[in-house]
Amino acid sequence: MPIRVTVWNEFRHEKSSEYVKKVYPDGIQNTLKAAVEKLLGSEVSVRTATLDEPEHGLTDEVLNNTDVLFWWGHMAHQEVKDEIAAKVAQRVLAGMGLIVLHSGHHSKPFRLLMGTSGHLKWREAGEIERLWVVSPGHPITVGMEKDYIELPHEEMYGEQFDIPTPDELVFISWFEGGEVFRSGCVWKRGAGKVFYFRPGHESYPTYHNPEIQRVLANAVKYVAPVGGVPNRTNSPQITDPIAPISKRD
Amino acid sequence: MPIRVTVWNEFRHEKSSEYVKKVYPDGIQNTLKAAVEKLLGSEVSVRTATLDEPEHGLTDEVLNNTDVLFWWGHMAHQEVKDEIAAKVAQRVLAGMGLIVLHSGHHSKPFRLLMGTSGHLKWREAGEIERLWVVSPGHPITVGMEKDYIELPHEEMYGEQFDIPTPDELVFISWFEGGEVFRSGCVWKRGAGKVFYFRPGHESYPTYHNPEIQRVLANAVKYVAPVGGVPNRTNSPQITDPIAPISKRD
Amino acid sequence: MPIRVTVWNEFRHEKSSEYVKKVYPDGIQNTLKAAVEKLLGSEVSVRTATLDEPEHGLTDEVLNNTDVLFWWGHMAHQEVKDEIAAKVAQRVLAGMGLIVLHSGHHSKPFRLLMGTSGHLKWREAGEIERLWVVSPGHPITVGMEKDYIELPHEEMYGEQFDIPTPDELVFISWFEGGEVFRSGCVWKRGAGKVFYFRPGHESYPTYHNPEIQRVLANAVKYVAPVGGVPNRTNSPQITDPIAPISKRD
Amino acid sequence: MPIRVTVWNEFRHEKSSEYVKKVYPDGIQNTLKAAVEKLLGSEVSVRTATLDEPEHGLTDEVLNNTDVLFWWGHMAHQEVKDEIAAKVAQRVLAGMGLIVLHSGHHSKPFRLLMGTSGHLKWREAGEIERLWVVSPGHPITVGMEKDYIELPHEEMYGEQFDIPTPDELVFISWFEGGEVFRSGCVWKRGAGKVFYFRPGHESYPTYHNPEIQRVLANAVKYVAPVGGVPNRTNSPQITDPIAPISKRD
Repeated sequence: MPIRVTVWNEFRHEKSSEYVKKVYPDGIQNTLKAAVEKLLGSEVSVRTATLDEPEHGLTDEVLNNTDVLFWWGHMAHQEVKDEIAAKVAQRVLAGMGLIVLHSGHHSKPFRLLMGTSGHLKWREAGEIERLWVVSPGHPITVGMEKDYIELPHEEMYGEQFDIPTPDELVFISWFEGGEVFRSGCVWKRGAGKVFYFRPGHESYPTYHNPEIQRVLANAVKYVAPVGGVPNRTNSPQITDPIAPISKRD
Repeated sequence: MPIRVTVWNEFRHEKSSEYVKKVYPDGIQNTLKAAVEKLLGSEVSVRTATLDEPEHGLTDEVLNNTDVLFWWGHMAHQEVKDEIAAKVAQRVLAGMGLIVLHSGHHSKPFRLLMGTSGHLKWREAGEIERLWVVSPGHPITVGMEKDYIELPHEEMYGEQFDIPTPDELVFISWFEGGEVFRSGCVWKRGAGKVFYFRPGHESYPTYHNPEIQRVLANAVKYVAPVGGVPNRTNSPQITDPIAPISKRD
Repeated sequence: MPIRVTVWNEFRHEKSSEYVKKVYPDGIQNTLKAAVEKLLGSEVSVRTATLDEPEHGLTDEVLNNTDVLFWWGHMAHQEVKDEIAAKVAQRVLAGMGLIVLHSGHHSKPFRLLMGTSGHLKWREAGEIERLWVVSPGHPITVGMEKDYIELPHEEMYGEQFDIPTPDELVFISWFEGGEVFRSGCVWKRGAGKVFYFRPGHESYPTYHNPEIQRVLANAVKYVAPVGGVPNRTNSPQITDPIAPISKRD
Repeated sequence: MPIRVTVWNEFRHEKSSEYVKKVYPDGIQNTLKAAVEKLLGSEVSVRTATLDEPEHGLTDEVLNNTDVLFWWGHMAHQEVKDEIAAKVAQRVLAGMGLIVLHSGHHSKPFRLLMGTSGHLKWREAGEIERLWVVSPGHPITVGMEKDYIELPHEEMYGEQFDIPTPDELVFISWFEGGEVFRSGCVWKRGAGKVFYFRPGHESYPTYHNPEIQRVLANAVKYVAPVGGVPNRTNSPQITDPIAPISKRD
């Protein structure tokens, strides 16, 4: 059975900015969809969802049939309904993989799952970013020829990045202007995995970059729940003893 | 300067149950306060706060002058105001230590900081709990003579405990009825530390136990912010480059 | 291409003890080989190697063609040549998966890779062991129907287990006699993964248990290097600058 | 009782190179000793030891009375006797703190404790290093005014750094020439803590830098065993059951 992927995008910059429209004429969601389909073929079945659809495109039917969810948002985090954000987080605890991109560090689902502010330093100067692999042999890096990816122009994100210690740190970014950033991080939450991947400012063609696309395709496979979303009762349970308990006063 | 400790307790069971009243006649908060004062003396200054006080006893003035906060709650988690829970979580990110006790696994501040449900299995059968140290030499275990603490009667909490992977796992509990539990866990969140410590059901005299008291006193010192709550701007920051950025087309 | 598995077994108890010979007439190595082949079919190609073969059956040719190595040893750890143990560890750093079983906690390759003593408490009383899953949805636990595996008779291993903090803690064991143990642990070392799995004393039929076999088959897939052993130069490298370095006095 | 610190230095470059002799006329060991004494006063008692002393200055008497050991070595790692390196590692498992500096990434005690090669990229070009704090409020960073330390001239060390995932990642370095490095890492090994701190090439005056000195003084306090080296039997132990074991066939 293919991995069922839903690419969620805020899809506002692409409508409001002529500049961004040229970079992503069909919206970031469709660029990502095409990339994942190209690289993973029949291993995936991909759909998209956007903020301005009813229920942000994330109905129960959609979420209950999603194994891996991408999340790109920026200018309209506050417009995401709390109940939808909570359902996304709940679905991760049940086993869904979540790939949070770039400015999604401030999105509601990410903050709910991390418990931290997601604050960071930033600067938009179109500078060089170089993402170094610090976890050799990690499945997310398979197929990379070098041990870094270089992007000629990106927004800078700098430490301190207010996140819990990642369970796995895969990439650290170097920025031309002098900062570093933990730019590829994996956390387990409940039965699900969250992968945060830093690059992808809307005004640069980052998601057209083949190396970035490969990382994202690898990430889909990595965070997908093995054997599907586990059939577990994610609820408090009162339990009978398995071993005998001695009689005492 | 002493570590400024606030012991927060829901303080309901002690009023509604004759049985609990006998175990903790002055409330769990005062038993904990006395224990910490006895063991740490002038190293600490301790006050208490309870649910039914105005703002649950956690005014801005109190929180801003608290280095370490204990949290015991159970039957009235939902009565804790969201805004107070959010302030507690925010203060942890700024550096305050938080010691979450027993049924506090379902409290609002803990869930906010963890991003998980805190669900677990449980059983109230007054069975034996044995807390094994799995991190030798950990500051929280200093002064223990054995490598376990045995409690003759406790409520059982069993895995799976829906928490993020602890940054430090200090204790694992064995229960007579057949379960295990990660019963002493440390997480960093922002600049603050959270210590979850499992034992302490209201109907057993667990907090009168000298070994448990020692662990709690050790924990106060361990989660207290070294040098006070850091003077950092916990906010997004736009930043000028430190290194020169090349001119490019 | 199938995952190339080598099952290494000391293969001494099965020859020296009539009792053990009845439990594992063909040696533990062949029981494990058959189990992995049965569960993974054409996904794997499995061979065995034992202590008393030349180079312990682990020639360069064998190691260089092994993606996942099982290691069972007990009474003859000291007979394993240092140079072979070092080659095993080196191959893990290059990407090979290593599954260390039971008394392998004291084996040379495991100690080399961990940097700790591997010491623990033990008792041979044929008591009940119950392995609780503490990482829901972990690939190693796929297909389990309950959240624990119960073994009616096993040797006890108890904390403190002198190991580095596992990168992933998958199982915690409960023992009838009163102890707990971190019994399923994953560490990354270099580009390779190490999985330690506790059960499997030679005098009990643990490796005939279908649930244990499933965990081991899952583990083979989990620790196998994705895309093969990475083609990286695992050596110190002197490096030219990528970015310009300013002239200074 | 003061923390008993021993500063171990290879002490060869300072004798063989006129250039280094000018930077550290009394040897790196005495610069470090003076810095720790200046900052920690009566909280510490500090001595030095060097490679060319009998037993490298690390007799049993010295090691058994050391709470925190600094280790600086580079050109003569292979001259350190295996048995002394093993004693150092063993003492860490028993609770001693170990601060490994700069080129000590390839030293015998560090490699023994990590189980990895310690390999990395390097370049000696006197470039800028900027060490960013990624763990706000960490005790090792207390007293820093900024969230980075800038060194005008240092040797470059670049990823991939072949180490186990740090239990705590405190600093990440940015280098002018384009690389990043995990430059402040903490691991627990047995009852002891290891802190690796990257800066300190022998030909630059890094250890005269007040900010670097403060980090090192903080680190002494952080890795020192609370309450002294624990009085535990670091050995395998056979154990009687605590709970009754049922009679079975």
